[in-house]
Amino acid sequence: MKFTIKRSIFQQELQTVQRAISTKTTIPILTGVKIVLNEEGLSLTGSNSDISIETFLPVTNEKAQLAIEETGAIVLQARFFGEIIRRLPEDLFTMEVLSNNQVAITSGKADFTVNGLDADNYPHLPVIDAANQIKLPVHVLTKLIGETSFAVSQHESRPILTGVHFILNNQELLAVATDSHRLSQRIIPIENTAENFDIVIPGKSLTELSRSFMNEEEIVEISIMENQVLFKTENMYFYSRLLEGNYPDTNRLIPTSFNTEIEFQVPELLAAIERASLLSHEGRNNIVRLEIADQGVTLFGNSPEIGKVEEELNYETVNGDPLEISFNPDYMKDALRAFGDMSIKIKFISAIRPFTIEPSENSVAFIQLITPVRTN
Amino acid sequence: MKFTIKRSIFQQELQTVQRAISTKTTIPILTGVKIVLNEEGLSLTGSNSDISIETFLPVTNEKAQLAIEETGAIVLQARFFGEIIRRLPEDLFTMEVLSNNQVAITSGKADFTVNGLDADNYPHLPVIDAANQIKLPVHVLTKLIGETSFAVSQHESRPILTGVHFILNNQELLAVATDSHRLSQRIIPIENTAENFDIVIPGKSLTELSRSFMNEEEIVEISIMENQVLFKTENMYFYSRLLEGNYPDTNRLIPTSFNTEIEFQVPELLAAIERASLLSHEGRNNIVRLEIADQGVTLFGNSPEIGKVEEELNYETVNGDPLEISFNPDYMKDALRAFGDMSIKIKFISAIRPFTIEPSENSVAFIQLITPVRTN
Repeated sequence: MKFTIKRSIFQQELQTVQRAISTKTTIPILTGVKIVLNEEGLSLTGSNSDISIETFLPVTNEKAQLAIEETGAIVLQARFFGEIIRRLPEDLFTMEVLSNNQVAITSGKADFTVNGLDADNYPHLPVIDAANQIKLPVHVLTKLIGETSFAVSQHESRPILTGVHFILNNQELLAVATDSHRLSQRIIPIENTAENFDIVIPGKSLTELSRSFMNEEEIVEISIMENQVLFKTENMYFYSRLLEGNYPDTNRLIPTSFNTEIEFQVPELLAAIERASLLSHEGRNNIVRLEIADQGVTLFGNSPEIGKVEEELNYETVNGDPLEISFNPDYMKDALRAFGDMSIKIKFISAIRPFTIEPSENSVAFIQLITPVRTN
Repeated sequence: MKFTIKRSIFQQELQTVQRAISTKTTIPILTGVKIVLNEEGLSLTGSNSDISIETFLPVTNEKAQLAIEETGAIVLQARFFGEIIRRLPEDLFTMEVLSNNQVAITSGKADFTVNGLDADNYPHLPVIDAANQIKLPVHVLTKLIGETSFAVSQHESRPILTGVHFILNNQELLAVATDSHRLSQRIIPIENTAENFDIVIPGKSLTELSRSFMNEEEIVEISIMENQVLFKTENMYFYSRLLEGNYPDTNRLIPTSFNTEIEFQVPELLAAIERASLLSHEGRNNIVRLEIADQGVTLFGNSPEIGKVEEELNYETVNGDPLEISFNPDYMKDALRAFGDMSIKIKFISAIRPFTIEPSENSVAFIQLITPVRTN
């Protein structure tokens, strides 16, 4: 293998696949990046036990100035190789595999010789059937991930809850995540007519996926096989394993009738919750209290050692019974951030039953659920 | 005490004194910020065992919109108080000391009540004789600190070496730091005619000091008493303890005759050292090798596991004997960064004797010393 390429372009590709590379893997070759050069272009691969990322840089990409002298493949220790590339003196560099998997990297007057590994020993990526796939704009998918993945469980006690549940059915894609204290569910319409599916994707994979996209306007194709999912854009293949097991039936958790409804502007409510949580974070229980009364709506935060805060809230509309309810403000903060800058409706049954948060605008199928904290 | 003030201005003052406040102190009241309001304005104080910072905001500062209702003093837990101020909803806020050292902080509809401490229990800052002081522009002092403090020892085995040695003598201020492997010494002219002094200031205090200045063009007044130094600008008093003990005589360490001299542009040499150190950092000894020969000047880095790098260096001029010398590239990086973007001369005696680095331009009294590593 021997080629010359523009350093900045190569570095970008390398950074993308490095998202999948961990230094803590038990399989030594997976600390490396696999570099494969054929007549069509250059492909890089990084992988860990959860995700694999493959990028492809076609020889036709003029910005990359890719000049191929000899095709071939090698694996190089990723972190270290990235550091070298970053510090090379010139805009272009040349890479050549010598004997014994040694690799010469030259740029200007700097000559590196580093030890590589045989690319034949690198694990193979799964082959995924491209026939059954759905297509989405990248920004639609990343929004869907942002609206749900924060609610996955961070604990391995119930592994299935560390993933987001995706169900394709009847030209609708439903995504739901819950850690059993709160839940977030979003439904979007899908135009494709792929086969229905029902899968659970690890939350961490989805977070890395969101960060790996370079172009919000691109189309991403999603293909599924038994235990893997592939997200494919023009120049990136992102594979994630799926979580095995049955995801709980979350639909029955969502209440449908309520006794109190109140409408807020998200940014204002979020700022007040952040202030109240300053105090609740110092207390033992981390709870804030919301009081909906005839004379006004008030939020309370309290810490015996530090002090307390009380704030009368601005709201849009309020209906139904008066209520006093306590909840973890961190769940509320996450929930509000997922809505962004809009107006929302919070609907309560009672102080001890989960309450829902939805956009005031009914057309968006997005609902969140938070379980309150009993204080007596 | 009761006053109203512009939040952003107050926050700036608070951030300055927070540099001196540690959550790890053994004296509980020092986790607090002392707030004192008198007819002239508002002063904040933060302190730890090494440094104390006091700021003063005069009532005449129109931007601050300081409205005094009642003078007084209180101590508030600094980290927590800072968080509250940061999250207040409006541009202005009001602070009022209630009974039992409780403090009400109100802004818009948000009402905080926090527990404070009696300001009478806060330790007193040293009183320093203002008669004997030198004056410098802030940017001259911060440059002097940047040129020397990186070379202080990070180890407490010889505490005196964790400070920078300052000697005022004959209208010259000399600053020198060494960790016994490398040394950096800078001399600047001083116009004032203060009494001569010879003090050692902790390196960490100087680093915090550099970060605390808001205005590079201001004048800073330096006053010294037995075990404290005060750096005073218009609205900030920065106190540091001095290190006790005798600083070693570093003057005799600096060689005066040499056998090999070479001149480099700093940015080019620095980039090459950074490349070579990528390899040396992976090896056991962290050394790079410089070879000055008739056919050229070459830098080598090597790590048995990873690989090696070899780079022919561009230089301005070279004189004297051929030489092969090995050294810790991290010391060289620190040294070169302190010079900034200029041309420097490196002067060698032999492979086993310390070498010096100076600006090519002779008018600047700045010299650094690095001890090489013997490789055989």
